[in-house]
Order: sequence, then C-alpha cells, then structure tokens
Amino acid sequence: MGDDEHKQQQESTSSDIGAAALPCRSLMSFNITAHYQTAKLPHLTDYLPSSHHHDLIITKTSNPLDRNDFYRPFHGFYISDTDVILRKILYDVAAAAAAAAPPDVDVVLAYHRAGPRSQIYLDPNNVVRAAIVTCGGLCPGMNTVIRELVVGLWELYGVRHIFGVPAGYRGFYSMDPIPLDINAVHDWHKRGGTVLQTSRGGFHLQNIVNSIQRRGFNQVYIIGGDGTMRGALKIFNEICHRKLNIAVTGLPKTVDNDIGIIDRSFGFRTAVEIAQQAISAAHVEAESAVNGIGLVKLMGRSTGHIALHATLSSRDVDCCLIPENGFYLYGKGGLFEFLEQRLKKNGHAVVVVAEGAGQDLIPRTDAQKQEQDESGNPVFLDVGSWLKSELNNWWSREHPGELFTVKLIDPTYMVRAVPANATDNLYCTLLAHSAIHGIMAGYTGFVSGPINGNYAYIPLTEVAEAKNAVNTKDHKWAWVRSVTNQPDFEKN
Amino acid sequence: MGDDEHKQQQESTSSDIGAAALPCRSLMSFNITAHYQTAKLPHLTDYLPSSHHHDLIITKTSNPLDRNDFYRPFHGFYISDTDVILRKILYDVAAAAAAAAPPDVDVVLAYHRAGPRSQIYLDPNNVVRAAIVTCGGLCPGMNTVIRELVVGLWELYGVRHIFGVPAGYRGFYSMDPIPLDINAVHDWHKRGGTVLQTSRGGFHLQNIVNSIQRRGFNQVYIIGGDGTMRGALKIFNEICHRKLNIAVTGLPKTVDNDIGIIDRSFGFRTAVEIAQQAISAAHVEAESAVNGIGLVKLMGRSTGHIALHATLSSRDVDCCLIPENGFYLYGKGGLFEFLEQRLKKNGHAVVVVAEGAGQDLIPRTDAQKQEQDESGNPVFLDVGSWLKSELNNWWSREHPGELFTVKLIDPTYMVRAVPANATDNLYCTLLAHSAIHGIMAGYTGFVSGPINGNYAYIPLTEVAEAKNAVNTKDHKWAWVRSVTNQPDFEKN
Amino acid sequence: MGDDEHKQQQESTSSDIGAAALPCRSLMSFNITAHYQTAKLPHLTDYLPSSHHHDLIITKTSNPLDRNDFYRPFHGFYISDTDVILRKILYDVAAAAAAAAPPDVDVVLAYHRAGPRSQIYLDPNNVVRAAIVTCGGLCPGMNTVIRELVVGLWELYGVRHIFGVPAGYRGFYSMDPIPLDINAVHDWHKRGGTVLQTSRGGFHLQNIVNSIQRRGFNQVYIIGGDGTMRGALKIFNEICHRKLNIAVTGLPKTVDNDIGIIDRSFGFRTAVEIAQQAISAAHVEAESAVNGIGLVKLMGRSTGHIALHATLSSRDVDCCLIPENGFYLYGKGGLFEFLEQRLKKNGHAVVVVAEGAGQDLIPRTDAQKQEQDESGNPVFLDVGSWLKSELNNWWSREHPGELFTVKLIDPTYMVRAVPANATDNLYCTLLAHSAIHGIMAGYTGFVSGPINGNYAYIPLTEVAEAKNAVNTKDHKWAWVRSVTNQPDFEKN
Amino acid sequence: MGDDEHKQQQESTSSDIGAAALPCRSLMSFNITAHYQTAKLPHLTDYLPSSHHHDLIITKTSNPLDRNDFYRPFHGFYISDTDVILRKILYDVAAAAAAAAPPDVDVVLAYHRAGPRSQIYLDPNNVVRAAIVTCGGLCPGMNTVIRELVVGLWELYGVRHIFGVPAGYRGFYSMDPIPLDINAVHDWHKRGGTVLQTSRGGFHLQNIVNSIQRRGFNQVYIIGGDGTMRGALKIFNEICHRKLNIAVTGLPKTVDNDIGIIDRSFGFRTAVEIAQQAISAAHVEAESAVNGIGLVKLMGRSTGHIALHATLSSRDVDCCLIPENGFYLYGKGGLFEFLEQRLKKNGHAVVVVAEGAGQDLIPRTDAQKQEQDESGNPVFLDVGSWLKSELNNWWSREHPGELFTVKLIDPTYMVRAVPANATDNLYCTLLAHSAIHGIMAGYTGFVSGPINGNYAYIPLTEVAEAKNAVNTKDHKWAWVRSVTNQPDFEKN
Repeated sequence: MGDDEHKQQQESTSSDIGAAALPCRSLMSFNITAHYQTAKLPHLTDYLPSSHHHDLIITKTSNPLDRNDFYRPFHGFYISDTDVILRKILYDVAAAAAAAAPPDVDVVLAYHRAGPRSQIYLDPNNVVRAAIVTCGGLCPGMNTVIRELVVGLWELYGVRHIFGVPAGYRGFYSMDPIPLDINAVHDWHKRGGTVLQTSRGGFHLQNIVNSIQRRGFNQVYIIGGDGTMRGALKIFNEICHRKLNIAVTGLPKTVDNDIGIIDRSFGFRTAVEIAQQAISAAHVEAESAVNGIGLVKLMGRSTGHIALHATLSSRDVDCCLIPENGFYLYGKGGLFEFLEQRLKKNGHAVVVVAEGAGQDLIPRTDAQKQEQDESGNPVFLDVGSWLKSELNNWWSREHPGELFTVKLIDPTYMVRAVPANATDNLYCTLLAHSAIHGIMAGYTGFVSGPINGNYAYIPLTEVAEAKNAVNTKDHKWAWVRSVTNQPDFEKN
Repeated sequence: MGDDEHKQQQESTSSDIGAAALPCRSLMSFNITAHYQTAKLPHLTDYLPSSHHHDLIITKTSNPLDRNDFYRPFHGFYISDTDVILRKILYDVAAAAAAAAPPDVDVVLAYHRAGPRSQIYLDPNNVVRAAIVTCGGLCPGMNTVIRELVVGLWELYGVRHIFGVPAGYRGFYSMDPIPLDINAVHDWHKRGGTVLQTSRGGFHLQNIVNSIQRRGFNQVYIIGGDGTMRGALKIFNEICHRKLNIAVTGLPKTVDNDIGIIDRSFGFRTAVEIAQQAISAAHVEAESAVNGIGLVKLMGRSTGHIALHATLSSRDVDCCLIPENGFYLYGKGGLFEFLEQRLKKNGHAVVVVAEGAGQDLIPRTDAQKQEQDESGNPVFLDVGSWLKSELNNWWSREHPGELFTVKLIDPTYMVRAVPANATDNLYCTLLAHSAIHGIMAGYTGFVSGPINGNYAYIPLTEVAEAKNAVNTKDHKWAWVRSVTNQPDFEKN
Repeated sequence: MGDDEHKQQQESTSSDIGAAALPCRSLMSFNITAHYQTAKLPHLTDYLPSSHHHDLIITKTSNPLDRNDFYRPFHGFYISDTDVILRKILYDVAAAAAAAAPPDVDVVLAYHRAGPRSQIYLDPNNVVRAAIVTCGGLCPGMNTVIRELVVGLWELYGVRHIFGVPAGYRGFYSMDPIPLDINAVHDWHKRGGTVLQTSRGGFHLQNIVNSIQRRGFNQVYIIGGDGTMRGALKIFNEICHRKLNIAVTGLPKTVDNDIGIIDRSFGFRTAVEIAQQAISAAHVEAESAVNGIGLVKLMGRSTGHIALHATLSSRDVDCCLIPENGFYLYGKGGLFEFLEQRLKKNGHAVVVVAEGAGQDLIPRTDAQKQEQDESGNPVFLDVGSWLKSELNNWWSREHPGELFTVKLIDPTYMVRAVPANATDNLYCTLLAHSAIHGIMAGYTGFVSGPINGNYAYIPLTEVAEAKNAVNTKDHKWAWVRSVTNQPDFEKN
Repeated sequence: MGDDEHKQQQESTSSDIGAAALPCRSLMSFNITAHYQTAKLPHLTDYLPSSHHHDLIITKTSNPLDRNDFYRPFHGFYISDTDVILRKILYDVAAAAAAAAPPDVDVVLAYHRAGPRSQIYLDPNNVVRAAIVTCGGLCPGMNTVIRELVVGLWELYGVRHIFGVPAGYRGFYSMDPIPLDINAVHDWHKRGGTVLQTSRGGFHLQNIVNSIQRRGFNQVYIIGGDGTMRGALKIFNEICHRKLNIAVTGLPKTVDNDIGIIDRSFGFRTAVEIAQQAISAAHVEAESAVNGIGLVKLMGRSTGHIALHATLSSRDVDCCLIPENGFYLYGKGGLFEFLEQRLKKNGHAVVVVAEGAGQDLIPRTDAQKQEQDESGNPVFLDVGSWLKSELNNWWSREHPGELFTVKLIDPTYMVRAVPANATDNLYCTLLAHSAIHGIMAGYTGFVSGPINGNYAYIPLTEVAEAKNAVNTKDHKWAWVRSVTNQPDFEKN
C-alpha cells in the first residue's frame, strides 16, 4: 500500500550514486545485523475451527482487486505476511558495529505492512456485513474515515451491506444500525463531526458482542481514542473467546495526537491549523490592551502536542504550558515573574495552555477529588478559567490600580468541528483503506496507522497501552522555548 | 534533531509487549543483516589545508548550544557522524532471510542524520558571514525558511552577520546584499512569496563565486528547485576547487514535489489545500451549466503530485491528467469518449490537468520546437488553453447546436503566493535548523530534508540527480482512478 | 418590509432633539415642497377582464400572514399602494427654497415600497404554481435567492407547487421543470452557483410564453442580468397582450453591479471580498520578482465597480483601469510612463483591470469586429492577455536585457462561484421575500431591489433601461486615484 | 461625498421614464410638502472670539483639494452647509396628501451631508495637530479608521502632525502620544484590533482637556461606543466652555450595532460573517451528539443585531435569544418545551444567545447586584454558562439517565479581533474621510455616519442619546422566527 507522503522507496533511488569523481565525495559502508521482533497479527484462523472443518467456516479466495478495472495488480502489488516496516530506523553505526556480535542485545520492533493481500478470507455461509462506529469526542476527519470505509468496501471488495452504528458503543445494543451506501456518504468528507453521531461511555461488553452477533455483523470498524481502543480490545478478546467469525479493527482517532506507536493521528494537523486562529485573536486582544494577556486554552489532556505545534507555527506565543512540563506561578523562574518581564518589555503577552496542564496546581474540592468521567478518569478542571483568575489575583495584588486585562479564548469546539484539511483527508482515506485490506485478509484485533510514513498493522493490545507524550528534551521543545523565551520551570 | 511529525523512537515503545497471555497473540522474530552504504558528507576539512596549518584556517570548537539557556544538551542530544537514518525500511522478512547469506546483495542506503553536532567548525580569522538566496518560482514557505535561517543562526549560534542576496543567483554579482536580523524577519512567516525576491537564470559560476569570496561570505544557503540545486553543486565544486573556507548548502524548494530522495518538499501541502478551492469553483461552474466542463490547470511540469493529491482530497474530479500517465483525446478509451459518458450521466464533469501533461499532444510551431526557457528546458505549452480549445472543437463537431461550456481555471499564482500552512511552517522551521546545524558542523555540498520522517543530510550530488515521479502503479494512483472512474489511457 | 441594514425610521428618533441648552446648538428649519412622480406598478387587474367577470379570473383575499404563527401583523405591518420610498433624498435647502415656488421644476422620483399587502390576489380556479429560472453567468447568492423564494412561498403563503426551470430561458420550452420544496432547497444557501443551472441566450418569446401557459405557471420569477431583464419585459408584455393571469417579476443579478436604480446587486460584496485574494496574490508575485508586475483581470464589462471596490479595500494596487475611464499606454501621462516610475520607486507594481476596460485599444481582426455574443453584443477581447503582451513588448523595447515579469491572474470563476457572504445572504433573503410579496399582491412586470436602503418595486421597463456606471468625478474615484497615485489619463 | 454602496443619485436616472406606450404603464403623481428640521452643526466660529478679532484665531481659506492632483473639484463637488440628507424617506402618499395642509404636523429630520467644503478653517498661529484615540472594546475596522484618518489628513489636507493617543481616554493625560505618518500606518487595515491600544474608563474630563490644550492638539478624533461618545460630548462642551480653537469629532464604533441614527456601525458585518463559523461549529457538535445542544453566545449587550443577522445568514439555528425579546425557560411556550420538541424531531438543536439576553432571569448575588462596570453599568452575568447549567439541570430532572450534551461556544474574541472585511473596510475609509472633511470645515461636536446610505454629520448630542434596538415587530424578526420556528415567548 502506498502512503500519504513518502515516495515509493524503490523509485527514487538515484542511479549513479558513488559515481562522482570529485575528491569531496566518498562512501561509508557498514553492516547492521539486527534481530527484529514483530508481533504476529491476530488472525481469524487463529481460533476458528481446525483445518478439516475449515471450509465450513472460512474460505480463502483470491483478492477481487485482481478483477477490478482500476487496479491491475502487478508483481509486488500485494503485500505478504512477511512484509514489515522497521520501526527503529535511526542507528548509530559505530554502536551498531560494536553491538553486532550479540544480536539479542539489539531486539527492535518491526510492524506488518498494511495493504491488500493476494488472498482474502470470507465466510462461505454469509455475505460480508460491516459495521462502523464512532466513539468519543469530535475530531476533524471522522466523516472522511467513515466515507472511505464505505466507498472502499463498496468499490474495492464489492461489499453491499455496510451499516453505521449510531452514537458510539451504546448504539450497538440500543439503537438500530443505519444502512450506508456510496450515495449516502458522497460528500461527507466535506462535513465536520460525525454523521453517525458519537458519545462517551456506554460500553457494555456482553451487550455489544451479543448485538454484533445477533445482527450478523462480521466486520467491525471502531473509530475512537485510547479508551475506545481498550474497549475494542475487550470486544476482540470476547469474540476470540466465543470463537466467532467476526473481525474487529480499530481506527485511532485523537485530535490530541496522544496515541502511541503511530506517527500521528488524523485531524491533528487540521486542529493545529485552526488553533492558530485563536492564538492570532488572542494576540490581537493582548496587543490592543494595556498590559494585555491573551490566554488560549487548547485541547490536550495528557499531551501538549497541539499547544506545541500551534505555538511553533504561530510564533506569536510568549509561553506554552503543557502537561509534560510542570509549571508554577509564583517565585523565581515562575510564570508570573516571566509575564511581569514580558509585560514590561512588550506591553502584552500570549499564553497557550493545554487543557491537561497544571491539573496538580488547581485546588480541588473534595467532591472534585472523587469525580470521575464516564471512562473512569479523574475529571479535568478548567485550567483556563483558573489561570485567568490567578492572573487577575496576582496582578491586583502586585500592581493595584494598574490596568491589566486577561482575555481567555477556548476554541475547542470551533477547532474540532471543522472538516479535515487536504493532508488529513488523504490520511483518512489511506487509513480506511488499510483497515479494509487488513480485515478482508482475515486479520483481527489490530489497528492501522502510519509508522515512519508507511501504513502498518499494529496489534490492538499494543496501541491500547502506548502513549505519545511530548518529549521535553528534544529539539522541538527546545525550539518552543527558544521561540517563546519562556522559563523551563525547573525549580531553582 | 527532532522531526515534524514522528514521535521520538525511544519514547513510544510499549513496555509490556509480549506480555499478553491471550492465545490470539504471538511473536515473529527474524534477523536482518544488511550492508548499508552511506555517502559520506563533504566536509570543509576534506580539502582545506593539511593538519599542520589547520588551525590557521578552521577551528573546531564546542557547540554554543552547550551554553544556550533553552537547550540543555543531554546525553544523546548531539548527533554524531555515525548516526544514520535508514532509507530502506520496508522488508520482506522471508526474502531478507533468504538473502542474508551474501550481505553484499542487499546494499541499501542510509543517510546522515541532521541535527546539532557537539563540535562545530569556525574560521579563526573571520566571523561567520552567512548569505541566503532564493531562486526560481514562488512556493509557500520560502519566507519561513528565510526567517528561520536568520533566527536560528542568531539564536542558536550567535551569528550576527546574515545577509539576503536579492533576486536569485544574479543577485550575488549584480546587487548589494541586504543585512538581515531577527527584527527584520519577525513576521515573514506570515507572508507569501519571498521578501528577498527571486528570479530564474542568471547563473554565472565565476561571477557568483568571485562575489561570494569578495564579500567574505563563509556560509551560503541556497533555496531553490532542481535547476537551482545543480547550480549549487557547481558552486560547491568550484569552492572545493579553490579550496575556500566556505560552506554551501541547498534547501530544496519545489511546489511540485518533484525532488527525489526526500519525503516531500515544503509548500506542497499548502498548495494542495489551496488548489482545492479552484477545483471547487470549477465544480460549481460545471454543475451550474448545461454540459459544463470545469477545467483546472494545476502546477506540475514533470510530475502530477499536486493534481493527484488535490483530486484525492476534493473527490469532485472526474478526470486527473498528469505527465506520468499519457493520455489521448479521441477514440476508444480516450478522454472525449469518457467525458461524453460523464456528461450523459451527470450533466457535467471536472477535469484537472497538470501543466506538464499532454505536452506531446500539443502541436508545436517550428519556433516553439526551438524555444527553451532560461534553464535550457524546452518551453512548456499551455495545456489548459489547448485542451479547452480541443474540447470545444470536439463538441461542436460531435454535437452541433447543443449547449456546452468549458470554464478554464488556472489558479497557479493564487496557489503559490499564499503563506505556508501550519504543517509546512513547521517543516520549514526544522529544515532551516537542520541546514544551520550541518553548516556549523563544517559540512558542505549537502542538502537537508526529511527521509522517512527524520531530517537528514544528503549530498548535493544525489539530490541534483534524483527525481520524484508519481508511481502510476501504486495504490494511490489506482485510488485516483477509482475515485474518478477515469480511463487508464492504455491503448486498446 | 424591513431592510437589510437600515434601522426602522421611526424607532431611532432621539426624543429630545432640540432640548440642549448649550450655545453651541441650534436648529435650522426649512420646507421642501416636492412634486413626486411614481411609476404606477403594473398589476394583473390592469388587463384582466372587467369587474363584472372579475371573480372568475382573479380574487382578492386577505393575506394569509394574518394567520401565520410567526407574523402578528400590527398596525402598519402591511404596506399600502401609496407607500413610497423617496429616491432623491439629497437636497440643497437653499436651492430647494428658491425653487419651491414652481414645484414642477423639481419633479423627482419615488418608488413603491416592497412588502406584504393586506390583500392578495389569487386565481380562484387554480392553485399557485410558481416557476423560478436563473439566466446568464454565475453570481454569489443565486442559490440563496432560489432557496428563499421556495421557502418564502412555502412558509409565508402556503404555496406547494414550486418549480425550478432548468438551464435558463431555453429550459422553459426544452426541459422539464424540477419540483422544489423546502427540504430540497434546505442547504442551498451554502452552495455556490445555481442548482437550477443557467445558460445564456435561448430566448424564444413565443416558445417561452406558450410553455408557461401550457404548464400552468401563474407566477414567474426570473433571476438574471440586464439582458435577462429585457427578456423578462418582453415576456411580461406578451402576457399582458394575451391577457393571462400570470405575474412576472425580475430579480436583478449582476456580479458587476451594473444594473441601475437599485443600490447595488446581490453577490457584489462577496465578489469584492474574494477579488482581494487575487490582488493579494498578484502583490506577492510582483514583490517577489525584480521589476514584477502583478496584473489582475476582474469582472466588469461595462462598469468597473468590482475593480474600484477591490482596489480601495486592498490598497495594494498601483493602478486601476476601468471602462469608465479611458486609458492609453504610451506617452506622457500614459500607463507605461507611470509604471516605469513605480518600478523605479518600488521595484514592483500591481495593476487591476476590469474586463471591459481598454476594449477600444485592443486591435481586432475583421472576424472579431463581426463577432457577437449570444445576446448580440460585440464580443469582448481579453484585455488581460493583451495588456500582458503589450507590457512585455514595451519593456523589452525600452529596457532590453533587464529583468521584467508580468504575472496575470484571472480569478473570475473562482470569485463568482463562491457562496454568498453573510451580508449578501441577507440581501438575497429580503430580495426574494420582496418579490414574493409583490407577486402575491397581484403586481407584475416589476423588479425588486433596495433603494436608499429600503426594498422597493420598480417597473421592469425602468430597470431594463437603466445603467449603473462608476462616476469618475466623485470622491470614491478620486480616492482610488489618491490611493494608487495613478494618472488620470486625460490627454495632455 | 460619495457613499459606500449607493450609486450617485443623478446618474442612474433612467432617461425615458414615462415614455412607454404599454397600457400596463402609468404614472402616479403627488406633492409632498414637508417641514424639515436640521440640527445645525456646532462650529468653531460659534464661540470663538467675535469678528473683529476673528482673523487672529481662525482663518477661512480655500480647500487645498483645489490644488490636489487627484481631485479636480467640479461644480457640485463641494458640499455646502445647506446640503442635507433626508432621514425620513418612506411616505404614505395618501397620508402625506391629507397632512399637507398643516405642514408643521410633519416635522421630520434631515442631516447635514458629509463631504469636503470649499472653504476650510485654520488656526493662523498654529499648524494642524491632530490626535486620534480609540476607546472601549475591539471591533473589526478600528485600524482601518485610524489608518485612513492618518492617510486622509496627510494626502487630502497636507497635515503632517498626527498623533495616536494610546490606551483610550486615560492616554491623553497619562501617556505620551505616538507620532503617526503614512508609512507607519501603511498596512494597518490588514490587522485586527487597534494598534493604538484601547481601554475602558479612565475618563477624567479636566485632565483630558488640559492635556489636549497642553499638547497643542487642535483636532481630536475619538473612536468609540456610546459611553465614549458621551465622554466626547463632555470634552466638546468643556472646550466650548473654554472657548478653545479645538475641534472634536466622534467616530462611532460598536460591534453590536447598537448606536442609533446611523444606518449601521463599522465592523458589524464582519462580525456577523465570523459569528457564523461559531454557529456552524455548534451545529456540527450538536448534530454529532445524541440530544446535542449547540449553544453560541454572541456579542450584544443591549441589542441582538449580531445574533439576529448571524441566525438569518446561517439558517442552522433553532432558537435565537436577544435582549429585546424576553424569554422564559419552563412551562408552556417556554424554551425548554420548544427544545424538547426539537430534540424529539431532529435529535439536536442550536441556540444562539446574545450576551445581554436573559439578564433578568439569572439569579444575582447581593454583591453582583451592586457591581458596576467601569462605565457605571450593572455588570452583565454570563448568560452562556447560566443557560448551559440550566439546560443540564432541566434535562437530568426530566430525562434522568438519557444522553444529553450541551456544547457552549463563546467566539467573542475570535470574532471581534479579525480585520475588517472588504465592505467594512470601505465603510471605515469613507467614515474617516467624512470626519476629516468636517473637522477641516470647522465643525466640531459632531459624529459622522451613514444615513440612508449617504454619509452625514450628526451632532454628538443626538448620537450620545440614540439607541438602535432590534424591532421585534418587523419583518426581519418575524423571518427569524419563521426560520427557527422558535416560540415568541409571550406568556400564554
């Protein structure tokens, strides 16, 4: 399967490398011997009845793309089970050489490549019946993913029974599925949100699996965040347990970009794009006031990726606060000291704060300490309002009578409700197609996503556990700090 | 150095992989022994006077980032000469195992990682004097690259003598350089085009190198496309030849995304985004007419990447014509037969054509056959006007008296003149910083760019020769054809 | 009827005017006695059978708004036949006083106010069957007008037989009408173009009126430009002649804003908004080149309103060429002399040219002299390409060997295909409702449109003849010249 | 002076009105004799020393536009003191005829036309020194007004001493004025906010007037809302009192469009445009949830114009709550009953609420009852949060356990911080020029603004007192109700 942005590896090889005669050029050669480990993907045949009954339950057949007008599968078009993508692709050659002897030392990961397989698996007794569900909060691109699942199943594999499960997990057992076809979904990629509707919670394992069984779905596409993926894993495990001919796949959706292993999540870039409008407005408000603070609260409960990227792109930000980088308000090296200097120097400042930042600083009532959201997480308090209030308190204490204005902007819903931009749109397309190819190939309990720019299949187990945090030691964060000049909030 | 979209490899490793007890999971292990070859990067010390005179010419010193407030170089922060990025990261494990015995068979490429080095090289007799030049056509993000070169040199390495060379190559010898500082470039990332101005041609090697020498530049940053990179290579070679303490680097700029080896070029995604507006307008015009054809000519002389991506994102296109996929107008399987069907079915059609498509079909006068552009390429004829005219001829012949309308939109200048979007903005930032780190480390004759999502240094020679064409055999092109239902134009 | 931007006249009267005690204030009183003349609006009863047969043909009944949940007609809600809007509202009191004696000297115009009438006219033998047609080129807001005609007829007057006539005038006799209802048109206001399709020409009077009669339409809504309005007048006259119970109204559509009497046409402001993007791109292209000229061709065949307004809003333009202000290229006070100075001073220049400008300067072949468009007008030659070519000729002659670049942008289709902005959207809504109220009141042969900010009914005859040209003597044009510093092109 | 959207009255008169021979046409003639009253504009000569000392203080001289290259004042170019715009332009001819006998009955208002005068007034002893100040909240277009004041003074009247007073009224006495010239303000029209900064309060009359005197300002341009205009009036009165040769003018700025007399305020249309983005996001959020409510709080403390216009333009709104139309939550005809029905029917609903709506419903603490803002108004409570909370309470009580989601969007700062769109940009330009012409003509204590589409001068007194409320009895509000189907909230 191709990918959204990288060129095909084979095609761009410059033919004459090494041919240059200049004294300035020479080659460096080295060997890398690496012991790779790939988590074998779960497959329906892992638990479906043994071979002599095999053809009653599941049938292997050639890929219908062989007969598709638009695909002329050439040699190498189909991906095999042994095709992998290396995850570790950065090497220190010197170290590698030294470590070459005991290969076990260098156990690194590789992932199965996504893409069409030459053989697909079908239930000989039933037609394909696919179910698509969206869970959790909105994210740009959800409708594109749904659309492309429908259009891809329809056009690539001739599937004609495709259903949308409304309103998230609870829709499996409490609502009727919505039949989808290519006409119905025609322009969904131009619409924000999810036409299928979404909700949080509502996860009742037995109800869901019973319902899947009862409705005769044999392909289940689950679009959602990390909590949703953990639910998908449970559904998959239960289906394994019941030995059902039902394949389950997850399509990771997180506007925060907090899901691990994959390069990045869909909708993230669109969100960063739109988030800049809020920063720009905050900047205007701050600049237009005397001692004006523009405060923008951006999405990001456990990670600050949106805040970081929007800060880097906009360059109008004086301080970027993220969950990965603890901060404090008062004292030397604190936020207020920094803002004091900025106001003195520029007369205004813009602060971007990810919603998960500073949660440890905000006082909680006893009730709030107990409170949990539908997924069982401690409830997040509103860092925006708290910080605005703290700023006002600080200033009126330190500078009584002096003008000061804090304008708080929370663009969350305006950011996440837009349609995907072109880059995310393509991502969603390839993601959906990857999922379809994997499911048709009999894989189950997996997630699709880009790894080093190439689409891969990853076991649900791994994705359900992995986290993607901002690395506050790398160049990108250092550059944020360089752009903003903000303190590093390490206690002095 | 970090990268724009991939997470750090080390951080997202799920700790407990393999710990699952489910029957559905297992691991697959394999060894890959690969013989890698990395083109050693040219370095100033390759040709500068031998070691006993060495300190007179060039001095190795510790990286000032050691003393930068925002960078606390930790272990592993600095990149070493032996740090590489693998270019080939897709493996068929089975084949790899089979081929393991004779490792030479599997010679694959790796590239030096971009990023700060612990030791930098300075001319002990002169301060750093950096020159930045932009050549060729406009591309979203040029001003961001310039801005980040200036700000990066200033903030990361304390450079205070930075100059813009106006108007492309000819500016070196025919105009005065423009002093730049961080205040001057402050908001350039919000502006389209290039503040430094650009032009085509004007490449006079001796004049340029003489001028570089005379003005005392010892760092030369050249932003441009493939023709520009070939010029940069000549400058580099001449500097080698003269044994000058001047480092040269290229920053690849091509809105068409036609430069090879690197993942993609900056500005490309922004261009795709904006190109969709033209497609959308063409769609409205076509839909609102009787037998309406909306014809959009998009950038792409040798490659159809913009046309392809805009088609995939918009999904309003009925036919996408690119240079890599020859087409014909009349007869079975031809464009007009297809459009006839589309008009019959939908009443309208949208055609996207890359500017380099169909050049072999357009009749040329003798004069046109001779004509060459400033870079010596055959002049491109206007495929948009030609196709519009051919469409009108065809229809009036085949359907005399019937309504028919072709609306031609050429959004080229409106696309390429916009500022970079957030994704491209970040790309430009990391590209500029990569270039600076490489130059400060004494490398020369190289280009920076992302490879498999990580920034790398690539010898200028390779980039000057590599091309990035659309692969009309891969999934992406097949999906374009599936989305559009267009013919494949292989003669029947 | 309310209006789009003016407050109700009665409500904002400051109660205490004249009450101030300051010496600085005093009142000036004067009488104006004006003899107004209002063109009586054509009405179905003008020619329908005389009163003793009256009830067979047309019935007067109370307005169903009386019973509408959302309208509680208060005293003054309904507009009467004697309610007028003054067209001349600027007076020189001194002159008025002097002229007061012979009032005939001061014959000025007034127009009937648009809005609901307390009594409406219905055909007792037939239900209302409304037909809507769009003719001519695209304009932002066409779909909003259609939508609001449908929704307004449906919701305000309970009409249930509403049809779209496809593809302009020819659709009346050559295609089947499309039934429309409020669900069908629900989101049309968000779409550019016209869902009903449009075309030029195809006007065959007898065919059209025969077809209207045959299909039983008794309300005909015609959306189009000045040519279309002349056609509508003929249809109206023919219907008068045949004494049919069919009312005809025109909704003036001209993106150029060239229709007279009314304040401005819908879509015009949207067009100006978008046109600025092209100017901005041209500015970037020009600035980024050496001796760069950005040339933007904007809509405006007989009038330069778009060019003028876009120039004033953008302020990046060096010269604005419009049909109302002849220009010349060479010699003292000519365009090239001016551009020469500008390039010398700024290094670049932006020229905006309305498509109708300079038509007398462009050489025509004999064939071109004969050529006429579908409406019988002389064909317009492409002033953009011609000017680009003349610019290049001029420069290469005057400055051989010197760099020079002309970038021509023609954003026409990208401008006119967008949906209406909020201001135009509201305009379209009120325009459509005005038309409906007038038609329901039995008026025919009229046009709706804003006059001095209030919606009025104007006889089709007047609109078909009136032109709205840019006044090159007023402040606005002077300010354009002041902003651009361009020459006035009066021969020296 | 020209106007922003209306054509010149003289030019569009159709020449042949009345010439038609059709039976369908006839004319209606009538006389209107009206007794008009115009508030004479305050003028510096009203109170400056009597005539025999006159030339020492103020000198009348010809307008420098006579010698301006771009203005060739023709006959009628200059506006005279007796040129007026009629405010009342809607007449019932029947009533007018009846009332004609006693003209005093029909005392109606007219206003002085804005525009250049042939004679201007200068202080013979001092050059012009102009001060510009911005007060109150942000509004799109403020920077355009400032820019055009500077450029207009500079280009039209050759003024070279122009100053920005920073940070609102307090800036007069507590900060240094900022010298402005045409280069400084060059691209301000492309920036949101106000470069001069703004603040609320800080109005100390004596300090301000003392400071104006001390700094030698003789022209004061005050941009602000109704509170600011009341301040401007006091400044004007004090200056009258002191008999100073200082002219004062107000430029009405209110994003809410709540200032009376004038047609509408600048920035309003831009605000409506952007507000729709928030409504669109709310719609997506609501649609994508089960029983989703999208709640958008828009600007509008005393008036609901933005809410109304955005609702009409977007058509995605189910209920629009404004200050002029009291509402209630519970019971028959209440908001919750309505929303219950909407959720049952559509599964979601969008509510737009102006910030001033429902203030009487929100419970206030004793402290809140006392609280006043800097201008002495009772503090507004946050209707958005309150309504969100009430909605949640209501639902959980009435539908315990059922899914329900309220998403509250407050786009205020993102709306008001954008630059003006093209229509507002032109408005701001003409507004600024009107102000300049008036000031140069010696007028003082006045405000400029469009009346019936033509720019006028209005005494500050009147503007300071007039209010522009939404008329909930007119067609526009009825249409809102028709579009939304919302209840009218009159108690049953």
